[in-house]
Amino acid sequence: MPKTILLQLDTDPLPSVFDRVVAVDAGVDELFSYGGVTPANVTSLVHGAMFTRGPADLKSTAIFVGGSNVAAGEELLTAVRNTFFGPVHVSTMMDSNGSNTTAAAAVLAARRHLDLSTTTAVILGGTGPVGFRAAQLLLSEGAKVRLVSRSINKAAEATTKLQGLVPGCDATPFGLTASGVSKEVLDGAELIIAAGAAGVTFLTAASWQGLPSLKVAIDVNAVPPLGLEGISVMDKNVMHGQVICYGAIGIGGTKMRIHKAAVTRLFSSNALNLDTDEIYLLGKELA
Amino acid sequence: MPKTILLQLDTDPLPSVFDRVVAVDAGVDELFSYGGVTPANVTSLVHGAMFTRGPADLKSTAIFVGGSNVAAGEELLTAVRNTFFGPVHVSTMMDSNGSNTTAAAAVLAARRHLDLSTTTAVILGGTGPVGFRAAQLLLSEGAKVRLVSRSINKAAEATTKLQGLVPGCDATPFGLTASGVSKEVLDGAELIIAAGAAGVTFLTAASWQGLPSLKVAIDVNAVPPLGLEGISVMDKNVMHGQVICYGAIGIGGTKMRIHKAAVTRLFSSNALNLDTDEIYLLGKELA
Amino acid sequence: MPKTILLQLDTDPLPSVFDRVVAVDAGVDELFSYGGVTPANVTSLVHGAMFTRGPADLKSTAIFVGGSNVAAGEELLTAVRNTFFGPVHVSTMMDSNGSNTTAAAAVLAARRHLDLSTTTAVILGGTGPVGFRAAQLLLSEGAKVRLVSRSINKAAEATTKLQGLVPGCDATPFGLTASGVSKEVLDGAELIIAAGAAGVTFLTAASWQGLPSLKVAIDVNAVPPLGLEGISVMDKNVMHGQVICYGAIGIGGTKMRIHKAAVTRLFSSNALNLDTDEIYLLGKELA
Repeated sequence: MPKTILLQLDTDPLPSVFDRVVAVDAGVDELFSYGGVTPANVTSLVHGAMFTRGPADLKSTAIFVGGSNVAAGEELLTAVRNTFFGPVHVSTMMDSNGSNTTAAAAVLAARRHLDLSTTTAVILGGTGPVGFRAAQLLLSEGAKVRLVSRSINKAAEATTKLQGLVPGCDATPFGLTASGVSKEVLDGAELIIAAGAAGVTFLTAASWQGLPSLKVAIDVNAVPPLGLEGISVMDKNVMHGQVICYGAIGIGGTKMRIHKAAVTRLFSSNALNLDTDEIYLLGKELA
Repeated sequence: MPKTILLQLDTDPLPSVFDRVVAVDAGVDELFSYGGVTPANVTSLVHGAMFTRGPADLKSTAIFVGGSNVAAGEELLTAVRNTFFGPVHVSTMMDSNGSNTTAAAAVLAARRHLDLSTTTAVILGGTGPVGFRAAQLLLSEGAKVRLVSRSINKAAEATTKLQGLVPGCDATPFGLTASGVSKEVLDGAELIIAAGAAGVTFLTAASWQGLPSLKVAIDVNAVPPLGLEGISVMDKNVMHGQVICYGAIGIGGTKMRIHKAAVTRLFSSNALNLDTDEIYLLGKELA
Repeated sequence: MPKTILLQLDTDPLPSVFDRVVAVDAGVDELFSYGGVTPANVTSLVHGAMFTRGPADLKSTAIFVGGSNVAAGEELLTAVRNTFFGPVHVSTMMDSNGSNTTAAAAVLAARRHLDLSTTTAVILGGTGPVGFRAAQLLLSEGAKVRLVSRSINKAAEATTKLQGLVPGCDATPFGLTASGVSKEVLDGAELIIAAGAAGVTFLTAASWQGLPSLKVAIDVNAVPPLGLEGISVMDKNVMHGQVICYGAIGIGGTKMRIHKAAVTRLFSSNALNLDTDEIYLLGKELA
């Protein structure tokens, strides 16, 4: 067996140290880290992964797409995959800004306490990278999702996109009203996941802790103030009132395990494309 | 023994993934990859290779010069070598755009079927990096070379340079005529190597397959249309009419073996300079 | 035990090959090398070192700050350390332009021959990175230091700073006179360390070799002409007249041993900050 090589393609000028440490701890033998990668300069890098090892050894090379800008990562991933042809393919994983592993860890935390197939969930900040992905995963499990964004138009666009990704799913867009999240959004919700922009508080402690239907609340923001007032980043299966709560560090252990397992998994085949659904599935296997 | 360290100095902004994978597969322990290297910024990098290990351990550090621009690689190699003094030297290898390993693999393919010392060879695109190097290797084996370029002036310049590199060699420059490659060029040729720019077809299938003297035809271009119509990049010792043919992928296995062996060889001494002739010689040892 | 990871943060565009080779030879498992690092872009890199491994494993990640510009390295080190909070800390080492290891090696060379607690030392070029650090180390050993700079104002500023770093120390600033280093500076000096800018000769051979009190002379400049005429970069415990002399390469072996030992030491704890004093102390342990 040749050494495993992970080609880290990062859209930021300096490639993520975080992703590098995780790759090392996942057992990658050789890590090739590139910053400032764009669809315009990626082709020859991918060719170098495609044309250096024979068919039997291709699975020992894989590509990780990362960086702080999730939209840029999505475009880069598309460019990478468009470079492959036929069986000349190496496995890929995308986790820009931790979006896929964080969404998977958040939904898996909820799944410990809820039957997702019958759950009504509210996603606050549902048009952002983590919120959108969490919505996608919940919908694929059969949950009903109320997707909330400051802009009803953006929420509606995201919902349309989700209906394309999860045909027949039950997703409803909501904007914020003058007084914030409306009663209609919260009524009957058993799960709230807050994944909005840093520093935006969506709900006061009283407003969500007083909600009779609510069983689980998760806030993925790592820096206070959080989107759900009263949750701590350290919360991990902690009760606030009648609600089981998780903060960003509380789901961090699961997120790290999924990230490492996904990197390790890359080298089991030359044909994997580990994106939102695949990374969540892998997290379910680990759970 | 200290770990082997290969210092990869690449003239492109992002250092070649291809060269990195080959280095890993050649068994290099530690690979230091730099992009955007120029004669102006290389000195301190080379000093770092020269002044960190004692005389007995210097052979465990080596320098590889690469990148897509062969002329830039040649200038960089000169700057690297000018930095050494006396015995404070590490071994070097140059293979910008695969020029040396491709030329060696092409000539070695011909050598399987021909006595090069008595061969009359035509090099189409003989002023480019691979064509020029293939001509140099053939001439050093005693072959007669007809070096063809679109510009007769550039062909003549290249021929003069070759006569400096291989004193007493038999090299003749040719330009293209209005109708392309002239009869005079082809008459009596036993070997044609096409190494022109991408997308330029020099000869129709009929014109080279109908040549009574021709025994071997090689096209090093990896992307169709090739310089010799009718050759496939996959051809490896395949007959088209009476002619034994090789395409770029057909010689690719040999090219890769030479590349890896050359990288491994770097660490056998601190005094090697692996360039066109040395890399070809190493290929002959492998054959 | 997880693999040891050294995060090399270099203020130059291309990270130092010298520091990379030393890191490899010090036994670092994985080296993450970044060039062009500034206080403005370092935070997320440091976060990647802080937030990827659990408390028990944090000591297997460490940060090295380097680059040719020592002032830039000092600013970067401050930015790195300001990023840590509480126990979420990894060990750091700073050796921009070899300033700390060179100063330590120079003072340790002097210490082989002198009782530093009673030594009167002259530092030529005492406001530069190596000279200033050598002065600091000598003062911390109890020596009297005459700190010489072309500008008396800069010498006075450096002396004031040293008095802050080594409370109660005996440091006196001197400028150069029209005829160079004054008699007052040299009278009674037992040690001279020349650490000025490249190409500046402070003293003729006769002027320092004729000094009756002088026992040891060290010049840390690697490129002739040196600051002390008549010393060779190769000098290692070599007598010129009655004076024991060392040149840059003469102290180079000690410098390298200190550098390697310091990198190795980084991984013994997650709480070390190896700067001037700590690196010198480690050198004393090795001596």
